[in-house]
Amino acid sequence: MNVVRIIGIEGLPIIKAGDNLAELICNAAENQSTPIQNGDILVVTHVVVSRAEGKVVDLDKVAPSEFAKTIAEQYKKDPALVEAVLRESKGIRRMSDGKLITETKHGFVCANSGVDKSNVPGERNVALLPEDPDHSAMEIRREIRRLTDCDVAVVVSDTHGRPLREGEINIAIGVAGISPIKDRRGEKDLFGYVLRVKRTAIADELASAAELVIGQADEGIPVAIIRGYNYPESEDAKATDLVRPKEQDLFR
Amino acid sequence: MNVVRIIGIEGLPIIKAGDNLAELICNAAENQSTPIQNGDILVVTHVVVSRAEGKVVDLDKVAPSEFAKTIAEQYKKDPALVEAVLRESKGIRRMSDGKLITETKHGFVCANSGVDKSNVPGERNVALLPEDPDHSAMEIRREIRRLTDCDVAVVVSDTHGRPLREGEINIAIGVAGISPIKDRRGEKDLFGYVLRVKRTAIADELASAAELVIGQADEGIPVAIIRGYNYPESEDAKATDLVRPKEQDLFR
Repeated sequence: MNVVRIIGIEGLPIIKAGDNLAELICNAAENQSTPIQNGDILVVTHVVVSRAEGKVVDLDKVAPSEFAKTIAEQYKKDPALVEAVLRESKGIRRMSDGKLITETKHGFVCANSGVDKSNVPGERNVALLPEDPDHSAMEIRREIRRLTDCDVAVVVSDTHGRPLREGEINIAIGVAGISPIKDRRGEKDLFGYVLRVKRTAIADELASAAELVIGQADEGIPVAIIRGYNYPESEDAKATDLVRPKEQDLFR
Repeated sequence: MNVVRIIGIEGLPIIKAGDNLAELICNAAENQSTPIQNGDILVVTHVVVSRAEGKVVDLDKVAPSEFAKTIAEQYKKDPALVEAVLRESKGIRRMSDGKLITETKHGFVCANSGVDKSNVPGERNVALLPEDPDHSAMEIRREIRRLTDCDVAVVVSDTHGRPLREGEINIAIGVAGISPIKDRRGEKDLFGYVLRVKRTAIADELASAAELVIGQADEGIPVAIIRGYNYPESEDAKATDLVRPKEQDLFR
């Protein structure tokens, strides 16, 4: 039977800078009697990765530029927050309704450059995105292999709004060990018809599936194991392969 | 422990017009010893819903308009397919690179108005989207309650491309018994911070999660049960609540 399990990892301590996140995840999985296995996919929300990597900024120590102050006044935002958002971005795609849609230095298009207040300890602290989320994923994957001898895939996730649709979903901003897209072109369907357009963004689907157990609020589950999904392996995959080049955006 | 299971329903017969899809799903679930339970979410790919509802068109019987012929010639497409796509749409959002991005009569923005060749029997047959996917979902939900006395949620899914991201993911085009968006604004995070922007598009995440077992090609699994996810119930939910009004599209 075809069954995929999404297992929330509970009981993780509050992650702080310098923590060995992979080791904490292995221990927590062990403690709840779901030790990590070969072929598991670990979906880790970026906020704990950012915290472990020390990518947390105290807004009281951020001096806003004149531009940040001007934007903050127009949109009734915190000038230091706007400054943090601008510093993380390489361009502004849209400003309206109090929302700042930027392109991050990695190339992701999202609200506030992914700068996040939720689940970050400290009144005035915000988490930035990891410097290189693919590298973060790779480090976790490597460390898990060292600790458990298991070969796993890792997906670092973030919550994104979407151009055409309401609400947010979780998507992949970092991957390791897994190809983010499963190319099914050339496969045959039930009736022998050869699929011509079919490139499934599996890393995004895995991130969304993990969100079903990852609570961003009260439950506080920042990591999920997805077990039973046969993913296409890759040693040099990049989550930015999921980013559509602006000039190829067919929806605009 | 927080575990969500995604169970593929195998062994369904080839669905044809007039079939009682709900009954076939119940039987197939029973046969593989995973009978439907209270609180399950059933994700059903639209193609089997469309086939059960007779929403299949033989392109040899579709007479293309002059406009359809002109487009077909420019984009090297089948004129009858273009005609079928136009008939299903209330507007064209974009034409380029051989792709037709339309707005369907329901309001979904997608390639080819959702007209689908894959997994449809008959050389020249294509499946259209269901007339009213929320109603389709509701009928399946009702019939399952009648047959099994179980209260389930139903999501009808389709595969969509995305403006900013490469690859396709499964999303919800019909819902019954479940609110497609979980509004978490006002909830507190791990450190007492009140979430201000957090409306999770759970119906889309469920559709994406189901795709991990739903094979559009060789395996032929058109339905998945998602078990263990505590969803917000709703009796009057609509999947079009997930469609962002054009004028509120902050990403453009």
